Amino acid sequence: MNIVYVLDILGTFAFAISGALVASKKQFDIFGVIIIAFVTAVGGGMLRDILINAHPINWIGDLNYIWTILIGVLCTFLFKSKIEPLRKTFFLFDTIGIAVFTLLGLQKGLSFNLHPFVALIMGMVSAVFGGVIRDVLTSKVPLIFKKEIYASACLSGGLMYLILNYFSIDTTISFIISSVVIIGIRVLAVLFELELPKVKDDIFGK
Amino acid sequence: MNIVYVLDILGTFAFAISGALVASKKQFDIFGVIIIAFVTAVGGGMLRDILINAHPINWIGDLNYIWTILIGVLCTFLFKSKIEPLRKTFFLFDTIGIAVFTLLGLQKGLSFNLHPFVALIMGMVSAVFGGVIRDVLTSKVPLIFKKEIYASACLSGGLMYLILNYFSIDTTISFIISSVVIIGIRVLAVLFELELPKVKDDIFGK
Amino acid sequence: MNIVYVLDILGTFAFAISGALVASKKQFDIFGVIIIAFVTAVGGGMLRDILINAHPINWIGDLNYIWTILIGVLCTFLFKSKIEPLRKTFFLFDTIGIAVFTLLGLQKGLSFNLHPFVALIMGMVSAVFGGVIRDVLTSKVPLIFKKEIYASACLSGGLMYLILNYFSIDTTISFIISSVVIIGIRVLAVLFELELPKVKDDIFGK
Repeated sequence: MNIVYVLDILGTFAFAISGALVASKKQFDIFGVIIIAFVTAVGGGMLRDILINAHPINWIGDLNYIWTILIGVLCTFLFKSKIEPLRKTFFLFDTIGIAVFTLLGLQKGLSFNLHPFVALIMGMVSAVFGGVIRDVLTSKVPLIFKKEIYASACLSGGLMYLILNYFSIDTTISFIISSVVIIGIRVLAVLFELELPKVKDDIFGK
Repeated sequence: MNIVYVLDILGTFAFAISGALVASKKQFDIFGVIIIAFVTAVGGGMLRDILINAHPINWIGDLNYIWTILIGVLCTFLFKSKIEPLRKTFFLFDTIGIAVFTLLGLQKGLSFNLHPFVALIMGMVSAVFGGVIRDVLTSKVPLIFKKEIYASACLSGGLMYLILNYFSIDTTISFIISSVVIIGIRVLAVLFELELPKVKDDIFGK
Repeated sequence: MNIVYVLDILGTFAFAISGALVASKKQFDIFGVIIIAFVTAVGGGMLRDILINAHPINWIGDLNYIWTILIGVLCTFLFKSKIEPLRKTFFLFDTIGIAVFTLLGLQKGLSFNLHPFVALIMGMVSAVFGGVIRDVLTSKVPLIFKKEIYASACLSGGLMYLILNYFSIDTTISFIISSVVIIGIRVLAVLFELELPKVKDDIFGK
């Protein structure tokens, strides 16, 4: 599955840049920027591996993640003014990232003999919690809780994978179809500005 | 100890609802609400299990926690306007929850051959840190640090359990007596609006 | 290495006091103060041990950390008005603390057969993340990301240790030299008010 590994690295790269951008806007020094890029990129997988006791955890077992993140931070510094114009490429990488993170996390969960539903949660944790940890460390209410269709996209793609898996469809084909579901939902959501319904305070009569 | 399991689930249910309520007031979307309900309900036990290396951790080893939380969130949505009137029932569940969480956490610590003092900390972590994680994720200074008698109630009940345990009192009886201590302190604290003394800034001469 | 253990405990003591001071300024009650002192002092080592699967984790495997922290909190309460005048002693303990935490964390990483670069990260996590967790729990953007030379000092000392280690220099001598590097950089940084360059928002063209 070499192509999946390449996509995983690409996603890590995109997540690292997104983290570095958030941190620079907060006036962090270079260490702060690296740490935020780091947790954004590998925080989700790290949390997953701690939860399911998969040691060595992601970035300790494979140093390529660290190098990728450092290169991502370097690129952010060097090509900062060019990132805005490259926005769409960047969005594409990011979206590929969440698709690959979700499905790899889910597969890892299944390979650890977790209940499919728990494996699905692990897929979502992998894709989503890097951003949550980033937001917590920068004192923001995690974006994902408020207006991202992220989680729904991951959930739908993950469910698709579990269904295909249940019917013993070939792993590679399942992976591709499910990725398309996640990427498709995310792209459509951005195009049509979809959002999940919010729970209004007043419906609780207060 | 079937009754304890039922109380554990009841407590999980109450904690999930309390988390869902906090999240809805923050305008979170449905995923945000579920995640906050989730960490509120099982975050303490999850942290405990990670700290003492008890795998599979609570909600991975027993899916009933997840179903309970999802039902709790559903109930919050369906019966939102009825929760306010049911406040006292809700408070009772919540209080039973912290008692059971504390004592089950403590027992788990002891069964892992931890020092009684560390086991006591694990009991408190189980009861208290779900709320701490909830508050961190919603960008609030954790309530527990400021004006809750929660921790003192858990500590007192946990100490009581350890003392009874030391004198080889029957586990079930110890559990009941210690629960009564925790529930009693919490109820009395709310009735008489007790608070722990605060450490004033000025006493540090600043 | 008895002297190192003593320094480790001294550092834990200093970190606990620093945590207790931060928490008191936030009007926390006594439990809040203890929890913040606790995570400040052992949070970094705890995170390291969870990441590298080193169980029992630091404060569970050695109760002296807990007693040290409790004594530290007690001292903060008793001698609060005397801490300000003792500022320099306190700063010294704190600085010794980060040096010892960094190098012990790095050594632990190496003893777990981690890649030297990952071991270096573990040293920095040990020294720095207690403060990060403290800041997250008190709803502040972690100080370390913004204006501390902390991380650079730890990094430099850790690198020094790895280099000396590579050339098979005696462990004790390496430890001493690397400590001096960390303590020296930190002291010089404070004396000359050095800071790492900040990443300005505007350089990203926004």
